[in-house]
Amino acid sequence: MEQLDPLKVCIAQLKRFPGIGERTATRLVYWLLRQSPEVAMEIGHALVSLPQNMTRCTNCGDVSSQDPCPMCSDSRRESGMICVVERPQDVQAIEAVGEFRGRYHVLGGAISPLDGVGPDQLHISALLARIGPEQIEEVLIATDPDVEGDATALYLAKLLKPLDIRVTRLAHGISVGTEIEYADRSSVARAIENRREL
Amino acid sequence: MEQLDPLKVCIAQLKRFPGIGERTATRLVYWLLRQSPEVAMEIGHALVSLPQNMTRCTNCGDVSSQDPCPMCSDSRRESGMICVVERPQDVQAIEAVGEFRGRYHVLGGAISPLDGVGPDQLHISALLARIGPEQIEEVLIATDPDVEGDATALYLAKLLKPLDIRVTRLAHGISVGTEIEYADRSSVARAIENRREL
Repeated sequence: MEQLDPLKVCIAQLKRFPGIGERTATRLVYWLLRQSPEVAMEIGHALVSLPQNMTRCTNCGDVSSQDPCPMCSDSRRESGMICVVERPQDVQAIEAVGEFRGRYHVLGGAISPLDGVGPDQLHISALLARIGPEQIEEVLIATDPDVEGDATALYLAKLLKPLDIRVTRLAHGISVGTEIEYADRSSVARAIENRREL
Repeated sequence: MEQLDPLKVCIAQLKRFPGIGERTATRLVYWLLRQSPEVAMEIGHALVSLPQNMTRCTNCGDVSSQDPCPMCSDSRRESGMICVVERPQDVQAIEAVGEFRGRYHVLGGAISPLDGVGPDQLHISALLARIGPEQIEEVLIATDPDVEGDATALYLAKLLKPLDIRVTRLAHGISVGTEIEYADRSSVARAIENRREL
C-alpha cells in the first residue's frame, strides 16, 4: 500500500528531475494539492505530450515539433552559413542574441573518449551531407570552450577544411564587463592566445 | 505557432510551480528531451492522476487516497488523543518523529483575519464532532508558533476546554542543539515564558 500511495508516487516521480530532491518534490506536491485539480492535470498533460510532440530534425539535429524544423525550412535564414553547437539549448542562447542569421547544426554532444563519445555518436555525417546541397561557405563552430569542445572543434575543422569552406570558431577571451584583475585564468590565457592586431 | 510549440508550452507549465522559474523550467525540459520518452510520460501521468486519486478525509481533513484515511481507520492508533495541525505536511513531520501514537486533525490553515481566514474557513466543526464519538481525552495543538498559529490555538482552547478535555500545545523554546548565544530572540522569549520547575 505504501507503494501505491499517489502522493508518494508523485513525489518519487518529481524527484527524477535533476536538482529536485525529496524536500522540493514534497513541497511541490503539497502545493499542487492546494490548487484546483486542473493545475496538476495541465502540467501533467504538457509533460506527457512533450515526447509525443517533439522529434529531432533529421537535417540539423535540433529538437522540434516538425521535421524538417522551422529553422531549416525558413527561407529567410541566410543560406551558406551553418553554426555548429553541442546542444539544442545552445541554439536558443545564440538566437537570443539576434546576431547570427544563418542556420544551425546540433551535434548532440562533444567528443569525449572518457565518456565513450566518439565522432560516430555525434550528428556529424548529417553535417557533411548538408555542405554541398546547402552551398555552405562557412561553418562557425560554437562548441564549449572546454577540452571536449576544443577536441570536437579541431576534429570538425580537419574534416571540413579539405572541402574548401571557411571554418571559424566563436572567440573566447575575457568576457565583456569583466575586469582583467577578476577574470579567470583560462579566459585570460585564451584572450592572450587569441589577441588581435589593432 | 509560437504559442503551440510543445517545448514552450511545457516550459510555461513547469514555471507554474513555486520556486521554478524560466531558467530551471527550460533546464528540466531539455533534460527530459535527452531521456527516453517514458520518463516525461511517467512523471506527467503521476501529476495528472494526483488530483484524481487524492481526496480529503472527511473525518480528519488530511489529504488521502481513501476516505476515511488509513490513519483514521487504523485501530492500532491510540484513541482518546488528537493532534491538531495546520497542514497535511505537518502530519508527515510529526509522524517522522515516531513519538505520537494518536490520531490527527488537519485544520487546513490558521485563523488570519488579514487573509480573510476565520474559524469558519477551517476544518473546526469536524474536530468538535469527533470529541464525543472518539472519546477524546486530550487535544494536542500543534499549530505554528506565529501570530496566526497562536490565535488559532487560543481559539481552539476556548472551544474545547468547556467540553472537559485536556488541551495542550507543543512546547516552543530554544531548539535542541542551539546554543543560547545564537538562538533567535523569539525562541528565547518563549523559552523563558515556558520555563519549567526543576
